[in-house]
Amino acid sequence: MNFSSKILEDAVNALSSLPGIGKKSALRLALHLAQDTSGKALKMASSLERLERDIKKCQICCNFSDVEVCEICKSPQRTADVVCVVESARDVMAIEDTNQFKGKYHVLGGVISPLDGIGPDDLSIVQLVERVRKDGVTELIMAVSPTIEGETTIYYISRLLQNDAVNISIIARGVSFGGELEYADEFTLGRSIASRIPYHTDS
Amino acid sequence: MNFSSKILEDAVNALSSLPGIGKKSALRLALHLAQDTSGKALKMASSLERLERDIKKCQICCNFSDVEVCEICKSPQRTADVVCVVESARDVMAIEDTNQFKGKYHVLGGVISPLDGIGPDDLSIVQLVERVRKDGVTELIMAVSPTIEGETTIYYISRLLQNDAVNISIIARGVSFGGELEYADEFTLGRSIASRIPYHTDS
Repeated sequence: MNFSSKILEDAVNALSSLPGIGKKSALRLALHLAQDTSGKALKMASSLERLERDIKKCQICCNFSDVEVCEICKSPQRTADVVCVVESARDVMAIEDTNQFKGKYHVLGGVISPLDGIGPDDLSIVQLVERVRKDGVTELIMAVSPTIEGETTIYYISRLLQNDAVNISIIARGVSFGGELEYADEFTLGRSIASRIPYHTDS
Repeated sequence: MNFSSKILEDAVNALSSLPGIGKKSALRLALHLAQDTSGKALKMASSLERLERDIKKCQICCNFSDVEVCEICKSPQRTADVVCVVESARDVMAIEDTNQFKGKYHVLGGVISPLDGIGPDDLSIVQLVERVRKDGVTELIMAVSPTIEGETTIYYISRLLQNDAVNISIIARGVSFGGELEYADEFTLGRSIASRIPYHTDS
């Protein structure tokens, strides 16, 4: 690509570093912003700056939050002894959209995946175990994507907690095996939380 | 969508204001940036800020530029008497990529389209006519998309210049009618510039 402007080229390079956005799409977006006269680019720039500088992780559930402890963890309306364990912030949003769950969450930050170099220490598993022991959590609902890596992660956590008085359940397999949790429809996802089954390491 | 963070929500709203990016894609991009630790979001923010604040339009060809007069308009290696008239900066880049054209450009900023509320005064047509008369341009190559609006624009410009000593040609119709110029492959686009034909208002 022959750019007439270094500023434009920089913007295209920055935008095309996003996942799923190639050079042609990035150019389309950059030209859209360059032609726009409503200050859209400045607004976006300040949003992204705050995203980098000001966003925190909740000290309890490890979800993204603007404050030290997020709204869900703070809420007295929500059961503190049932914790739904998910991979990412997107999964919390997907489950919240079903309106089927009134407990709290724990965001792992991924699943154990040796091929991608992600071990238990890269996830918030230690915080989860501490939380179970300290806060008297009675049930962990494992709402992790039903993949090999997800199964491995559930198994790993269940072994760490085998001597603790906590029930571990997994969401019912309405979600198709090998699929991604975030793409399940709300009904399926809601039902799979309602009809969760106890987890046994020998099953 | 139930956001755990207002900062995240703002970033998703800003990103989904871009053309072709919906809420789900915007969320994916925002979470990617929130999780990134290499400063990608800050870099992107500063690129977009400069795009809004510092980018200029070349005083001669109206293409995006970092300086008052762009590299192509300044270049003594390029023929100043043959000017290729295009709709947008993207078209200049597409034609430059063919390496078939050694003249200069004029970026209209669109085509005449009454349905979209775009009239001749919204485009850089006055500057083009002035440029032809002042700089002694001998040929205008109309490399405008072969749509009804494109044809209308070519006709309008040719009528304005009918008493001037300038030849108007249009790029050969290797480009499929009704298509968009930027998606033509380099070979077709290059050949269509090489085999351009004279334009007659009565043809």
